[in-house]
Amino acid sequence: MRAAVLRGPGRIGIDEVPDPVIVAPADALVRVVASCICGSDLWHYRGATTRTGRIGHEFVAVIEEVGTEVRTVRPGDLVIAPFVYSCGVCVNCRAGWTTSCLIGGDWGTADRDGHLVDGGQGEFVRVPLADGTLVAAPVDETDERIPALLALTDVVGTGHHAAVSAGVTGGGTVVVVGDGAVGLSAVLASRRLGADRIIALSTHPDRARMAQTFGATDVVAARGGEAVQAVLDLTDGVGAEWACECVGTTASWDTALQSVRPGGTVGYVGVPHGVTDGLQLSKMFGRNVNVRGGVAPVRTYVPDLLADVLAGAIDPSPIFTESIPLTEVAAGYAAMDARTQIKVLLRP
Amino acid sequence: MRAAVLRGPGRIGIDEVPDPVIVAPADALVRVVASCICGSDLWHYRGATTRTGRIGHEFVAVIEEVGTEVRTVRPGDLVIAPFVYSCGVCVNCRAGWTTSCLIGGDWGTADRDGHLVDGGQGEFVRVPLADGTLVAAPVDETDERIPALLALTDVVGTGHHAAVSAGVTGGGTVVVVGDGAVGLSAVLASRRLGADRIIALSTHPDRARMAQTFGATDVVAARGGEAVQAVLDLTDGVGAEWACECVGTTASWDTALQSVRPGGTVGYVGVPHGVTDGLQLSKMFGRNVNVRGGVAPVRTYVPDLLADVLAGAIDPSPIFTESIPLTEVAAGYAAMDARTQIKVLLRP
Repeated sequence: MRAAVLRGPGRIGIDEVPDPVIVAPADALVRVVASCICGSDLWHYRGATTRTGRIGHEFVAVIEEVGTEVRTVRPGDLVIAPFVYSCGVCVNCRAGWTTSCLIGGDWGTADRDGHLVDGGQGEFVRVPLADGTLVAAPVDETDERIPALLALTDVVGTGHHAAVSAGVTGGGTVVVVGDGAVGLSAVLASRRLGADRIIALSTHPDRARMAQTFGATDVVAARGGEAVQAVLDLTDGVGAEWACECVGTTASWDTALQSVRPGGTVGYVGVPHGVTDGLQLSKMFGRNVNVRGGVAPVRTYVPDLLADVLAGAIDPSPIFTESIPLTEVAAGYAAMDARTQIKVLLRP
Repeated sequence: MRAAVLRGPGRIGIDEVPDPVIVAPADALVRVVASCICGSDLWHYRGATTRTGRIGHEFVAVIEEVGTEVRTVRPGDLVIAPFVYSCGVCVNCRAGWTTSCLIGGDWGTADRDGHLVDGGQGEFVRVPLADGTLVAAPVDETDERIPALLALTDVVGTGHHAAVSAGVTGGGTVVVVGDGAVGLSAVLASRRLGADRIIALSTHPDRARMAQTFGATDVVAARGGEAVQAVLDLTDGVGAEWACECVGTTASWDTALQSVRPGGTVGYVGVPHGVTDGLQLSKMFGRNVNVRGGVAPVRTYVPDLLADVLAGAIDPSPIFTESIPLTEVAAGYAAMDARTQIKVLLRP
């Protein structure tokens, strides 16, 4: 089969690789219908990590075959695969922290038994722990909502986790720091959770417009101290109840921490590649600013978010600003790296 | 009158200072019945800050005189003074964040109008914003519960804030890092909030015994990685739901962050003098460890905690391991600095 392979910094392409087969009774073998490129893939692409090889962790697929122990999905089902695989039954999965599954792992790397788990950017994937990992959706692969379902595999659940971690509910104001796919998803999630006022920070007019489409009530086209002052001006001088930190740099953290009022909470999901010097407690202690979040347990959130997509209550599909064949994966990475596209969908 | 004065690192004594008088209509003038020495006073005493002069921010007193605007307390009332003064009516006070009062301030320093606000370690204190600050208790100054009431001015409310911030409720396990007066108070608060299991870390037998008196179900006489392993052994290998960080050093933070399970929360109140390199998000992100807390809004908690003291439900008075006359303040600081006493009560 064909699959994307990261050969080194800035070098990605399509290789012919071995067709996956079922190796464990809890496995499923799936044919990818759509996958996409993640902001976190760019860290590898840019050489910020040493990772190379198979890549991609967001995909919607159709089940081709299942192992003998698989009970919840069957051949022909269209399924949503969250950005890590997880068992669904260990103590952490049962508590909802599927990203801390005791036997789960990452797409595109070897599993605990040393067998490769394919990346999502390819034609087929062997899915370990299929019952715990996959969520079936009652649609077929030609459905126009495939992009919306694909968005649930990572960014929508991650933006939702930022908002849930911040504690967003009705009756307050949330500031969303970050206008990438996750930040835009945090806007969508904040509206879904009922926030009265959603302040999106964006200096890009196209992203600002999408934030407004997703529910932002205010857009602040500024960064840093200027953005913080604008938020204070919009909140009677005290700051917002909540902030969603969807970037992961020292500068974005400073903005988030300063945008909330005493007792406020920053919900964070930005992979902290860029925060090398640590969170300064001195910026939190005196004002009782709370920090909640981390890597999103997307699997836990998929069923509820899927129900809302199917009901037409939310439509995250506009975050895919480009859809290209898998064979053009290199152009997709280049476009996301240059930020000329928000998120790129790949069709095998 | 006589009052404690910090002259420089390690040098504290009693001076004759001007008697305070009422200067604003919201003031009260009070006669101190009992005050005490705080772990945070030691930072100044040790020269970790440049602060000198009048000191002390925990006291129980009797009202001598009130300004024309004061409505909630009157001469003769016995009152509890939290460790900062606060108005009770600004947006932050109304939300419960009295330590972020827009016009409040610290004992022992000048107020917004430039008038000295006395420290608590003295004979008399001018109390600004008396209605917002003071809580009257229906006891007289000879009552044996005076030490328990004095404990509510800071450490009990601060330990309570750690537990509340961590989210301690029934049905889970909390680890308390720190065996000083605040840590012991966090044990007391955790029991009051219904934690099933309370693991106190203490390598001092006397403090460990007091922790057990206050409700600790387990004592771990270890630090660092050894303590973390002991906590994991006590919690089926996954860690506790909650930790209370009551020290404020990099080492204590590491212990707290590693002691909780995925999705767990560290409630923190340790003044972060000792955490110079910042919280490493890499220790939090992958396991969704949350950080909540800060400087405790003790005023908000006093009424509920006072009710429990008066009802006999809690008795924090054992944290005062020594009671001495105000004139012996230097010996009190020396004893706390050497950790030979947990907390020293001063009687003017």
